[in-house]
Amino acid sequence: TVNGDRLWDSLMQMAKIGPGIAGGCNRQTLTDEDAEGRALFQEWSEAAGMTMGVDTMGNMFMTRAGTDPDALPVYVGSHLDTQPTGGKYDGVLGVLGALEAVRSMNDLGIKTKHPIVVVNWTNEEGARFAPAMLASGVFAGMHTQDYAYNRTDLEGKKFGDELARIGWKGEEEVGARKMHAYYELHIEQGPILEAEGKDIGVVTHCQGLWWLEFTLTGKEAHTGSTPMPMRVNAGLAMSRILEMVQEVATANQPDAVGGVGQMQFAPNSRNVLPGKVVFTVDIRTPNQAKLDAMRAEIEKRGAEICADLGVGCSVEAVGHFDPVTFTPELVSNVRNAAERLGYSHMDLISGAGHDACWAAKVAPATMVMCPCVGGLSHNEAEEISPEWAKAGTDVLLHAVLESAVI
Amino acid sequence: TVNGDRLWDSLMQMAKIGPGIAGGCNRQTLTDEDAEGRALFQEWSEAAGMTMGVDTMGNMFMTRAGTDPDALPVYVGSHLDTQPTGGKYDGVLGVLGALEAVRSMNDLGIKTKHPIVVVNWTNEEGARFAPAMLASGVFAGMHTQDYAYNRTDLEGKKFGDELARIGWKGEEEVGARKMHAYYELHIEQGPILEAEGKDIGVVTHCQGLWWLEFTLTGKEAHTGSTPMPMRVNAGLAMSRILEMVQEVATANQPDAVGGVGQMQFAPNSRNVLPGKVVFTVDIRTPNQAKLDAMRAEIEKRGAEICADLGVGCSVEAVGHFDPVTFTPELVSNVRNAAERLGYSHMDLISGAGHDACWAAKVAPATMVMCPCVGGLSHNEAEEISPEWAKAGTDVLLHAVLESAVI
Ligand SMILES: NC(=O)NCCC(=O)O
Ligand SMILES: NC(=O)NCCC(=O)O
Repeated sequence: TVNGDRLWDSLMQMAKIGPGIAGGCNRQTLTDEDAEGRALFQEWSEAAGMTMGVDTMGNMFMTRAGTDPDALPVYVGSHLDTQPTGGKYDGVLGVLGALEAVRSMNDLGIKTKHPIVVVNWTNEEGARFAPAMLASGVFAGMHTQDYAYNRTDLEGKKFGDELARIGWKGEEEVGARKMHAYYELHIEQGPILEAEGKDIGVVTHCQGLWWLEFTLTGKEAHTGSTPMPMRVNAGLAMSRILEMVQEVATANQPDAVGGVGQMQFAPNSRNVLPGKVVFTVDIRTPNQAKLDAMRAEIEKRGAEICADLGVGCSVEAVGHFDPVTFTPELVSNVRNAAERLGYSHMDLISGAGHDACWAAKVAPATMVMCPCVGGLSHNEAEEISPEWAKAGTDVLLHAVLESAVI
Repeated sequence: TVNGDRLWDSLMQMAKIGPGIAGGCNRQTLTDEDAEGRALFQEWSEAAGMTMGVDTMGNMFMTRAGTDPDALPVYVGSHLDTQPTGGKYDGVLGVLGALEAVRSMNDLGIKTKHPIVVVNWTNEEGARFAPAMLASGVFAGMHTQDYAYNRTDLEGKKFGDELARIGWKGEEEVGARKMHAYYELHIEQGPILEAEGKDIGVVTHCQGLWWLEFTLTGKEAHTGSTPMPMRVNAGLAMSRILEMVQEVATANQPDAVGGVGQMQFAPNSRNVLPGKVVFTVDIRTPNQAKLDAMRAEIEKRGAEICADLGVGCSVEAVGHFDPVTFTPELVSNVRNAAERLGYSHMDLISGAGHDACWAAKVAPATMVMCPCVGGLSHNEAEEISPEWAKAGTDVLLHAVLESAVI
């Protein structure tokens, strides 16, 4: 098993880079803090005997050699970027857990037939540049690199420019690598494992997602002197769409969610009815038919709500993945590892999207999950216990070895 | 009568300072553009023989001497600041119309017993720093200067610091001046005059206002992995409050309005349910009892909506004035001037707030209005005709002389 203290210590050190304002982290992708976190991860990886490759999307690949020169590597990792008010574990546990697995193999003198590659994917969160899992998506051929380079943040800065600016645009062609298998450890970010008192989530599926960016066009006008019947009120249309999304998600219980996290009013002045309101609806469910139906219903009803008010409505899908089924053989490896190590476990559907969802498009892939307190994530108060982190990493090590040894 | 071409020419020159992106203006208060606009106004005023005083709130007072050294001045003016996507006339017509009135008195060799003071009030719009009419409010004793200096914009910059930065913090004690009368020319910013085919609005009242800043506290959480029943969704509460405000305003027709122009989500990330949503409800009506009842109903129902969802709710009043009745004698002067000059006119209640509303607290005061195309204001497409501008300024000149001559 792994060294839980060393793992925890690394997690705490990484959390000091891009500290949040309430105990968590603000290490958003392609910021100076991201560059600093990458450099620390590089230092640690090289100290553990690994060699670095970086591709043109900034994805970092740290290789521990295998014994068979012809064997494809087993990839293990996640992401080091965080939400603006994110936690210390979301993504980071998956990268530093993989690093700890390698450190432990070194300690125990374990050699593997297949090389092990610890990976840090760029811009998993999608907080600064939509969509989430952008760089693993390009790796898997789901987006073109050109599309990715042209994604903009709220200040209008481009992904490609920011990647070059922080000095982490590599030379290696993105997606050129072939994987024997891909494993990712992640905190659950939901309440189930803790509620069920389980140490380990054996992740069999990931629910699908649509990010629908609505752009509503109203008529900028004075809030005081514009009579109610003359208003073309994009803010009111927005409020009706939010309520409708809540209705649609509620009608699709128990396995669907819907909500809105990002909202911009323009010109955003107290005495001006907004001329433009832009917001992103996030809907998810593991059920493919439901996912498609929810999207269709939300777009249709959204258009009707706007038409009723004379408000212009356009919708752009800025993020999407269909529900994912992870590779049964790898899922068994995770379940068997938990069993063998004596950790309580249960099968789980991931509520969040992960780089593993894109890796699954090009390789056998699965995930290991550990609980988080109160199911809370994307919040600086996100918390896990050192015991949960160690259990997850132990299972990760054993499952990875299962794929890598023979 | 005044020189309409000279007036129009000055309006067009001023509009070049802080140009908008769609033909209007972005000359927000206490920006470099505001400073530039002030300097041009100073230059023009001094060229017209006036002498400048500036108070500690940055209010600019340009004095044309009278013949009686003991007579209190007649004040005439409005504001040069604009919305972020504002028009070329809102406020500016009132300042440059007053300047044109003085220029015309010079041309015609008219002397007055009372001095004439052309005034440019700081931060009328309230777009950058709430509340609107901030500096005339301090002048009239409605706010302390300390309160004003500590108002912050969305970037956290303080009014007092920005006033000093642009170099327009004067020495004169704010509110020390006494007024014989106050007149303000303004575009209607509403649709009535144009619809009724009238040249001049004789403004008898101004409707009252509340700006209620709601701060909703939800629980930041992952949009994908947080089950619907576990959400504490401040965005949903916001949407219900917007719909409720619409309901309350609709129930109070025909003489009430309600809407929301400013909205901030935090952390404003697509896959994070907002921990904080801040927005400002703007409600207005000329009916004092209605105004109070609407505020009470909105605060009560807002609190209930939030309580239902477990969302925290606090409300701060960041702007307020009660309905205003302008001084009947001055209102008659305006009506008589329109009549004498042969302009069609009607009595009007101002839908927007104006510096005249605060001036009315400390002096006899009233306003003159001219139509604007489609009632549109707080929009770069705000438009008036040169004829409307001249008619309003003619009436302003005649009404001012009525007060100033004897
Ligand atoms: N794990 C995680 O939070 N990923 C971000 C993408 C998503 O919103 O699911
Ligand atoms: N006239 C004008 O637009 N003033 C701004 C204050 C208000 O919102 O009424």
